[in-house]
Amino acid sequence: MQHVDFSEMDCPIARAWGRVGEWWNILILRDAFHGLTRFDQFQRSLPIAPNMLTKRLNGLVESGLLERRLYSERPPRYEYVLTDRARDFRPVLIAMMEWGNRHFADEGVQSLLVDTETGTAAQPIVVDRKTMLPVTDPRFAFAAGPAATEAVKTRMGFMERKRKKALSAD
Amino acid sequence: MQHVDFSEMDCPIARAWGRVGEWWNILILRDAFHGLTRFDQFQRSLPIAPNMLTKRLNGLVESGLLERRLYSERPPRYEYVLTDRARDFRPVLIAMMEWGNRHFADEGVQSLLVDTETGTAAQPIVVDRKTMLPVTDPRFAFAAGPAATEAVKTRMGFMERKRKKALSAD
Repeated sequence: MQHVDFSEMDCPIARAWGRVGEWWNILILRDAFHGLTRFDQFQRSLPIAPNMLTKRLNGLVESGLLERRLYSERPPRYEYVLTDRARDFRPVLIAMMEWGNRHFADEGVQSLLVDTETGTAAQPIVVDRKTMLPVTDPRFAFAAGPAATEAVKTRMGFMERKRKKALSAD
Repeated sequence: MQHVDFSEMDCPIARAWGRVGEWWNILILRDAFHGLTRFDQFQRSLPIAPNMLTKRLNGLVESGLLERRLYSERPPRYEYVLTDRARDFRPVLIAMMEWGNRHFADEGVQSLLVDTETGTAAQPIVVDRKTMLPVTDPRFAFAAGPAATEAVKTRMGFMERKRKKALSAD
């Protein structure tokens, strides 16, 4: 099935999704962060058809998240190595893991991030680097940026208009 | 196209993805965080076919991320409101937005998280709540949890075995 492509949409979330959002990509990236690099390793780890795995690996190479490297000359064999851009996605994956463990692990935690110095579970949260406050603090809000299109401004202004309307209705 | 369902896999990332990973879901959630609640609002915001939007909204209700509420009795009209479980996903979305802006916004930032008290861009990072260290610090590592299946232990042990092999080859 051909999806509508999110890669060039006027939104950083859509653009991120355009690179990682194809079904399987997130689990391929997860496995790559666990050290898997070779086609047969991914295939053993994931219940994915070989032609689909090839397609997804090529897509991740095209998006600049994996780099294809020759590791054997005779016969020629390639491995797939995470790029810096992909490594920078690891914290997002960790935040998602935390959310998954909190809401969808009824029978207990199967995998997690640990603090190897204390041997205890890490507690990943998203904070603002300058204030070190959680981004859930009400002082943080989504806003249109300097390169915002009209559509983005409309989207970002929706909540504010809604709030004003609610106030004037009081 | 029927995907392999990730919702009951032995991994919190897969389970999270099983709920948010269907194409369009992330943009529907984004719009919901911007205050959109009604079918026609989502439809105006997203280039999505009505039948697909219905399908995705129903899926998000089934996953416990949206709640369907009657807002007009005659005619009966429903709106879709974020649940607490979905609100808890907002920091993950913010981390993804940050990654998108850093890597895929060549023409400039279109939308971002701002600190409304200073009027400047927030700098979202993922840290461990106890130490307040970024999760990129080498002291943090993925590990198998108490409810790990054998497959999870194998996956989690891969990197360690790889490291040992590399050491013994030196």
